[in-house]
Amino acid sequence: MSADTASLNPDQGRSFDPMLIRTVGFDADDTLWHSETFFAVTEDRFRALLAPWCSEEEVSERLLTRERDNLRVFGYGIKGFTLSMIETAIAASNGAIPVGAIQEIVEWGKEMLAHPVELLDGVEFVVGELEQKYRLVLLTKGDLFHQESKIAESGLADRFDAVEVMAEKDEVSYRRVLSRLEIDPATFFMVGNSVRSDVLPILNIGGQAAHIPYAITWGHEQTTSEDQTLEFPVLSSIREVPALLSARD
Amino acid sequence: MSADTASLNPDQGRSFDPMLIRTVGFDADDTLWHSETFFAVTEDRFRALLAPWCSEEEVSERLLTRERDNLRVFGYGIKGFTLSMIETAIAASNGAIPVGAIQEIVEWGKEMLAHPVELLDGVEFVVGELEQKYRLVLLTKGDLFHQESKIAESGLADRFDAVEVMAEKDEVSYRRVLSRLEIDPATFFMVGNSVRSDVLPILNIGGQAAHIPYAITWGHEQTTSEDQTLEFPVLSSIREVPALLSARD
Repeated sequence: MSADTASLNPDQGRSFDPMLIRTVGFDADDTLWHSETFFAVTEDRFRALLAPWCSEEEVSERLLTRERDNLRVFGYGIKGFTLSMIETAIAASNGAIPVGAIQEIVEWGKEMLAHPVELLDGVEFVVGELEQKYRLVLLTKGDLFHQESKIAESGLADRFDAVEVMAEKDEVSYRRVLSRLEIDPATFFMVGNSVRSDVLPILNIGGQAAHIPYAITWGHEQTTSEDQTLEFPVLSSIREVPALLSARD
Repeated sequence: MSADTASLNPDQGRSFDPMLIRTVGFDADDTLWHSETFFAVTEDRFRALLAPWCSEEEVSERLLTRERDNLRVFGYGIKGFTLSMIETAIAASNGAIPVGAIQEIVEWGKEMLAHPVELLDGVEFVVGELEQKYRLVLLTKGDLFHQESKIAESGLADRFDAVEVMAEKDEVSYRRVLSRLEIDPATFFMVGNSVRSDVLPILNIGGQAAHIPYAITWGHEQTTSEDQTLEFPVLSSIREVPALLSARD
C-alpha cells in the first residue's frame, strides 16, 4: 500500500485516527468518475482550432487565464468553460475565427455535458465495502444540473446518505454542509483528487482527508508547495481507502 | 384583497386551510427579486442584433425553441441562455453574424449574471412578518452558483431556515426536498410566480400554494388552461400573503 499515513503536522494537534471516523465523504469528478480527461480532449481540439493564430502553449495559457477571470461570474462547470473557450477563441484570433468554429465549440460543450458517466476503477467495490461500516456522503462542486445528471446516471445515488452539490469547496462551505448534515468534523473523513478543494479545507476544519491524485489536474486546482504544510495520506487508488480506514481497527 | 381562496378541486379532498401551515416556502426569481425583466431586456437587444436577418417574432420563436431543446443538456440559468442565444444568432443569420456580435452576446450574459439583486416591493416586510410565526424556506431553481450569489447579495439568507437550489421543480424533487427538511407537505405552503413550477407540483403532493404572477412569464413556464383543473389563491402582491395565512386564524 502506497499510503503515507504519517501524522499530521503537530500544529493540528491531532494525528490520523481512523477509529474516530463515522462518515466518509467522496468528491465526484475525477474521484468517482472521469471528468478532467474530457476537458483535456476538448482542450486539445481547441488548441488545434486556434493553431492558425496561436501556439498551443499560448492558447492554454489564455484559456486558463480567461477561465479564472470568469470563475467569479460563471462558477465551475462545462457551460462556463464553453463560454470561456468562445471568448478565448475570439480574442486569440483577433476576431478572425469564423463563426462556424464558434458553433463547433458550443457543440463540444454539449458533447461534454452529454458524455456518459465512466466510473473509475474500484469505485463500486469500495463504496459497497464502506457503506457497511460508515455513513457515506457525496460532496461535489460545479454545475448543479450536470452534477445531478451524472449522479443519477452513475447508479450510485442510493449508496449515499446525502448528496450535496456545492458552489465552492472552502472551509466556510464545508462547515455549513457538515453542520446541516449533523456531521462532527472530527468524525469525518473525505477523499478526493484535489488537494485544494477536497483535502486542505477539511483538515483545516478539524476533519481527516486523503488525496487520490487523478492523472490530470486542472491548472486552477493545482497547489504549490507553500500550501502543503499539512500532511495527509496520499493514495494511488480508491481501492486503498478501506485498508487505510481499518489500519488501526 | 384579490385573493381567490376558493376550495381546491374536490378530487383533492381538501380545502385551503391556513391553520395547518407550519412552513412557508418561497420561490426566489420573480417572487423575491426581479429576474425575468433582465432576460426581457437582453432579448430586446438580441432581437435588434438579428434584425438584419430575421423578424422580431421569428427571433423570439427560434430562441425559445432552442432554449427548450437545450434545457435537457444545459438546465436552467443564464449561462445556458447565453449559449442558446449564440446558437440562435448563428443559425438565424445563416452564419453571417459577425464574430464581434458573438462576443457582445457573451458580455450580455456576464452583465446579467453580475446584475445587482433588486428585491420586489414588500418582500422584506412580509418575510419579517412571517418569520415570527412560521419556519421559512427558500426553494429556487436554476444555476447553483448564480442563485447562491443572489441569495447572499439579497441580505435575506439568514431569514430562511433552509435554502435549496433545485435542478428541477417537479413533484419528485419537491418530495425529496421536503422529506430532507422534515416538512410534512400537509403543513407546507408555497408561494411563487410560476403556476407550473411553484404551485401545481406542491398541490399535487398534498401541500398548499398561492400564485403571485410576475409582470412577465418566460414562455417555457407558461401553462395552458388544461393544467388548471386545480384551484388556488392568486395574489397580486407578496404583501397579501400574511392576510391569506391568517384568514381563518
